[in-house]
Amino acid sequence: MRTGTNLPKIRDYNQGVVLEAVRLGEGASRVEIADKTGLNAQTVSNIVKRLIEGGLVVEAGKGKSIGGKPRVMLEINAGAGYSVGVQLDGDEVSFVVADMTGRVISRDKQPTLQERGPAGIVEGIASSVDRLIARSGIPPEKVLGVGVASTGLVDHARGIVYEPSNLLGWHRVPLGEMLEAEINYPVLVDNDATAAAVGERWSGVARGVENAAFVYMGGMGIGAGLIIEDRVYRGGRISAGEFGHLSLNPEGPECFCGSRGCVEVYCSPKAVVLAVNRRLRQGARSSLREAYEAGTQNVDFPAIRTAALAGDGLALEEVERSAWLLGCGVVGLVNLLAADLIVLGGKAVSGVEEIYTEKIRHALGERALDRDRGVPRVEPSTAGEEAGAVGAASLVLHTIYAPKLAALRHG
Amino acid sequence: MRTGTNLPKIRDYNQGVVLEAVRLGEGASRVEIADKTGLNAQTVSNIVKRLIEGGLVVEAGKGKSIGGKPRVMLEINAGAGYSVGVQLDGDEVSFVVADMTGRVISRDKQPTLQERGPAGIVEGIASSVDRLIARSGIPPEKVLGVGVASTGLVDHARGIVYEPSNLLGWHRVPLGEMLEAEINYPVLVDNDATAAAVGERWSGVARGVENAAFVYMGGMGIGAGLIIEDRVYRGGRISAGEFGHLSLNPEGPECFCGSRGCVEVYCSPKAVVLAVNRRLRQGARSSLREAYEAGTQNVDFPAIRTAALAGDGLALEEVERSAWLLGCGVVGLVNLLAADLIVLGGKAVSGVEEIYTEKIRHALGERALDRDRGVPRVEPSTAGEEAGAVGAASLVLHTIYAPKLAALRHG
Repeated sequence: MRTGTNLPKIRDYNQGVVLEAVRLGEGASRVEIADKTGLNAQTVSNIVKRLIEGGLVVEAGKGKSIGGKPRVMLEINAGAGYSVGVQLDGDEVSFVVADMTGRVISRDKQPTLQERGPAGIVEGIASSVDRLIARSGIPPEKVLGVGVASTGLVDHARGIVYEPSNLLGWHRVPLGEMLEAEINYPVLVDNDATAAAVGERWSGVARGVENAAFVYMGGMGIGAGLIIEDRVYRGGRISAGEFGHLSLNPEGPECFCGSRGCVEVYCSPKAVVLAVNRRLRQGARSSLREAYEAGTQNVDFPAIRTAALAGDGLALEEVERSAWLLGCGVVGLVNLLAADLIVLGGKAVSGVEEIYTEKIRHALGERALDRDRGVPRVEPSTAGEEAGAVGAASLVLHTIYAPKLAALRHG
Repeated sequence: MRTGTNLPKIRDYNQGVVLEAVRLGEGASRVEIADKTGLNAQTVSNIVKRLIEGGLVVEAGKGKSIGGKPRVMLEINAGAGYSVGVQLDGDEVSFVVADMTGRVISRDKQPTLQERGPAGIVEGIASSVDRLIARSGIPPEKVLGVGVASTGLVDHARGIVYEPSNLLGWHRVPLGEMLEAEINYPVLVDNDATAAAVGERWSGVARGVENAAFVYMGGMGIGAGLIIEDRVYRGGRISAGEFGHLSLNPEGPECFCGSRGCVEVYCSPKAVVLAVNRRLRQGARSSLREAYEAGTQNVDFPAIRTAALAGDGLALEEVERSAWLLGCGVVGLVNLLAADLIVLGGKAVSGVEEIYTEKIRHALGERALDRDRGVPRVEPSTAGEEAGAVGAASLVLHTIYAPKLAALRHG
């Protein structure tokens, strides 16, 4: 049942709208903000006053006047607050500290010590976060919170991670609660792809885009983070955005998820590694031959990416095949969701973004249902390998500061 | 850029919220509505007063008292207004008149005279609408509008239909404008699947469901109507919900859309008809043999459905195969959108809904990623064959009366 709205909710919402206008506006004035938001000048002026008093917004010099008195340009106060982003994957944990604009001011990386189990990993995250904050030289009281972008199915509202396929022994881990017990900051947990989408929307290529999907290729899995009508979409159940489990062949090879022929089965780094190794075993010519003979573990995804970029035929063919099939999956996603923008990122595509984006564009251009009236843009993530970590940091900023229509009707 | 909100917008929104509470509440009282919507008693009382004065809501007798004075039950005034729904398909056009509660009070059906072209078909629709209104005995001034659920890609905002594959010679038809020129009512045009979803949400099995998808099987195509976070989702482009063009095999048979192996290629009525005829040609045993020998055009989808329901092995096998593959597509949709409810309907599944819903449930139970924590409900449409027409009528009611968060921020 939908609930009604009232004045205090509206004040919060409008404040979020003005803050967003400042954030996206590259030095907008009060007049321009009133113009863009449809709020009247007095309302904007009052809200801006509150935001300046609260230290969130600063006056950043005079803009060009359009007659009358010069317009004062407004900007987000980058140092008003900071957030920490953590990207949890099977092989490593990445950390960033971001300022209020989403800019990364420091970073760190640690191997995921899987043998230590959930509790040990959480302890490790907590001490890394404290160390990174200390090293960043920002006052701890200015840290607004810690966001964690996790592999696996995530119950965002309760901070629980379910059965990530690449974290051994993790079945149902209350990650949010566990981490909050170890550190002095509020913790938010989200799916890595969803976090990456929030990051791109906050400070990347999806700024201001109404409908966007972030196709996230982590070390193992493939997921999508969805922005639908200006909002982060997490769905009624906890598995929204599981793009890696669209089936490209219901009678194809089994996926760990129990289905068959999933996008992950054909397009994940693991799938490419298996395909390249199979062809090497069958005697295919490739610059990877020497590494292969020295031990198949040498032909991993980073090695294949490097070979593909250097022009190795076998490596390039398999990477391109994975990218093309991913593109065919994206066609389905676009046909279903009619997104305006597809962002591609995550650790796996680092360095080969162009190969992937080009193939996705190609698939959309040939196969998207509505291609005659144009196809969505396809762009690599601005955060690159750190898309999950930057997204996790943005999650904190987004949760506190983004205008949320839904807040108009909830409690 | 998001726009802010203000008092008049809020008043409209809250009025929509109260009206929805009355509609869904089965005789709720003012107290219960205040309770459910979170609005204070005075606000509810004022809004209800306005709604009663406007004739939209009536007091329907006394409910049980919980101490103090008896609570007055409120109901939608079914006769406050009516809307006409038109379902345009390649072979026939269906019409319904619905009252304010979405109940159908009269209906009609005409063959689609394709040889008359868009202008002729529109003229035919206009005269059928006028005739049906006259026959219904409702005063024309109480008709709020005409909704059209059309096959093809539809630009809802501008009422334009693009290239429906089953309407010959239709390339870019401004159906809304053309029909408005012929009749005295406002016209809304939408994709048939989207309209069906709106209908189910207004008066069917999706009442009050936050995230739902209506899988619509028309005479030819397959589409989905999406309700996302209580709102009808149409996407940034015009092809949202094109579930029939998820690919189940990017290297499979060509689809008319230019892609390969689409859900439509495997699951549409046409696909089933082709498969059954192929097997009959190869000599398969079937109760359809006699009809087949008399002319292959006799083995159409209605004949196959009838045979399947009578237990014919061949017919049942092919219908079930189509239903299973459709279910595999629904698994992808559910993994991506995490819907709470899947509704199945449209003319093609009339009579065989149970076969389809059972196979979809089966696929979800075996293959949905999050199945361990439960799968969405799968239900046949309450509107049956008329899902598009009832949806089109609901479209008018929904557009006028549903609370729209988005309206809080637009103009």
